[in-house]
Amino acid sequence: MKFSPLFWPVTLQGKTIRILDETALPHRLVYLTSHGYSDSCAAIKNMKTRAVGQVLLVMYTFLLEIEKHRNTKTLIPHLEKVARSLNATRPTLSFKMLTDMVLGWARSGAPLAQTITGFLDMLKVRRIEQAEKASTLLSGNECVLTHCNVSGLMPLIGEMCRKQNKDISFFVTETRPYLQGARLTSWELQRAGFDVTVISDTMVAHVMSEDKINSVIVGADHLALNGDFANKIGTYQIALLAKYFEIPLYVLCPPPSHAQTGDDIPIEIRPDKELLEFNGIRIAPRGVKGYYPAFDITPAELVTRHIYLEIR
Amino acid sequence: MKFSPLFWPVTLQGKTIRILDETALPHRLVYLTSHGYSDSCAAIKNMKTRAVGQVLLVMYTFLLEIEKHRNTKTLIPHLEKVARSLNATRPTLSFKMLTDMVLGWARSGAPLAQTITGFLDMLKVRRIEQAEKASTLLSGNECVLTHCNVSGLMPLIGEMCRKQNKDISFFVTETRPYLQGARLTSWELQRAGFDVTVISDTMVAHVMSEDKINSVIVGADHLALNGDFANKIGTYQIALLAKYFEIPLYVLCPPPSHAQTGDDIPIEIRPDKELLEFNGIRIAPRGVKGYYPAFDITPAELVTRHIYLEIR
Repeated sequence: MKFSPLFWPVTLQGKTIRILDETALPHRLVYLTSHGYSDSCAAIKNMKTRAVGQVLLVMYTFLLEIEKHRNTKTLIPHLEKVARSLNATRPTLSFKMLTDMVLGWARSGAPLAQTITGFLDMLKVRRIEQAEKASTLLSGNECVLTHCNVSGLMPLIGEMCRKQNKDISFFVTETRPYLQGARLTSWELQRAGFDVTVISDTMVAHVMSEDKINSVIVGADHLALNGDFANKIGTYQIALLAKYFEIPLYVLCPPPSHAQTGDDIPIEIRPDKELLEFNGIRIAPRGVKGYYPAFDITPAELVTRHIYLEIR
Repeated sequence: MKFSPLFWPVTLQGKTIRILDETALPHRLVYLTSHGYSDSCAAIKNMKTRAVGQVLLVMYTFLLEIEKHRNTKTLIPHLEKVARSLNATRPTLSFKMLTDMVLGWARSGAPLAQTITGFLDMLKVRRIEQAEKASTLLSGNECVLTHCNVSGLMPLIGEMCRKQNKDISFFVTETRPYLQGARLTSWELQRAGFDVTVISDTMVAHVMSEDKINSVIVGADHLALNGDFANKIGTYQIALLAKYFEIPLYVLCPPPSHAQTGDDIPIEIRPDKELLEFNGIRIAPRGVKGYYPAFDITPAELVTRHIYLEIR
């Protein structure tokens, strides 16, 4: 099994966390370093890593802080401070679920480093199983539309389809404003040898109406208990269009949070500068304002199948 | 009445046609010149002007060629050659309707230059009436979503709403890949003093679900006899979303062509380079392909009201 660099984009090497800088892709494959929780928080805020990368970064940051903090009496208060900083980085991913889990282990007296490492080992296995489940839902000749980036799961699904002798190709929305589709997903699919076509986010209905798409697969940044989910802005309208064109929508989900429905999931509003500039060049005239909700909520009833990450 | 520079972006001054270079906006307000039909065809192919600008450029190109061509015996064959070149520039706008009209006038022995000038004078009046009709459809407190650029009609509609003491504001999709919304529409609305917010094309369903939008107004590049229309790629999905959220969709239409339905309107496929690069910088990895249909077809049943340009 070959993995995309985006499948496990953050690693711990000695006393340094290596973070794949997703903002530099596809032109440069470079890694940033974090030497502690404040570096990690900055990397999250600046969207250097996203999605699973954020989960890994939270976990490795705890491992690093445990390693650095030799005084066991003050460890828990220190980890609580680390958790507060991580929780404050971005609102839509449920960082608190993760940090509460680690603090719970710490307070219970579990062997903390081993428990975290065990969690990460399980996460890897479960993500591979998730890709496997998705692959079995696809037909023998499938063109999948995807949006944003699902951290290496898409080429993994493709590879599993190949093993099942299924013919699979991909359409990828560019995913404005951050262009994760054009920059990340097309890159990881191309380097894994798949047929991939980039479209702009304006072209979804048109390509669906041309019968080019057999299924839609997207990720989810935050899953509510009723099956509603938050994902990268643009997912909701793709889901509505898939419903209209009777194309199945499969969602690669994290474990649910405590949110009862999508209404309980906060939507991050990011600075409009990130929308109105591109590579430092202003697109819109100076003085014009933008509105940049970074996520939207897709209601459960638009989902054909939730593909869960089985972590308990 | 103040007009946006985009309302009448092409003019004839002596023996030179001045063409507002829409690709340089919003940073520079510059004009290109055409000294004859081959210059004009190049400007159309390179999308230096679009929509109404193309109609004006066709008409002024004929005026210029008539002026330059003093041998009346060979004038009609010459204009036929000009017409063939113009018809071959881009497929979706029905250039042939326009060039056939001019050739018809020429063959009928009508005073050609005066007839063309009279047509352009009528076009200006009818476009103002079209904006007036649109403004009367809007409520006293309206936030309009628009896509791409309707050649100066949007600020004109806004100004007419002001005169009717209506409070109007605008959301503008950036309109990838050419960003006409972010570059042109937000620019002309801002300089006319309107409240305008730019969103990416991924945000339409989300802002509609937040009840931020009261109506959608778009243009049409090509109208079929049954009311289906071609417009900038992305219009179709906005129309589907407007229907879903029960938001009225008003379409500023040109006169219909001979196309019976949208199926008879050819869709221009442009080079994927224009999608995969931005300001000369590659977005997607080298070797990844793109698909760039420049227009899509919106079926008549999604339109709340066609607002016709009354030219006969």
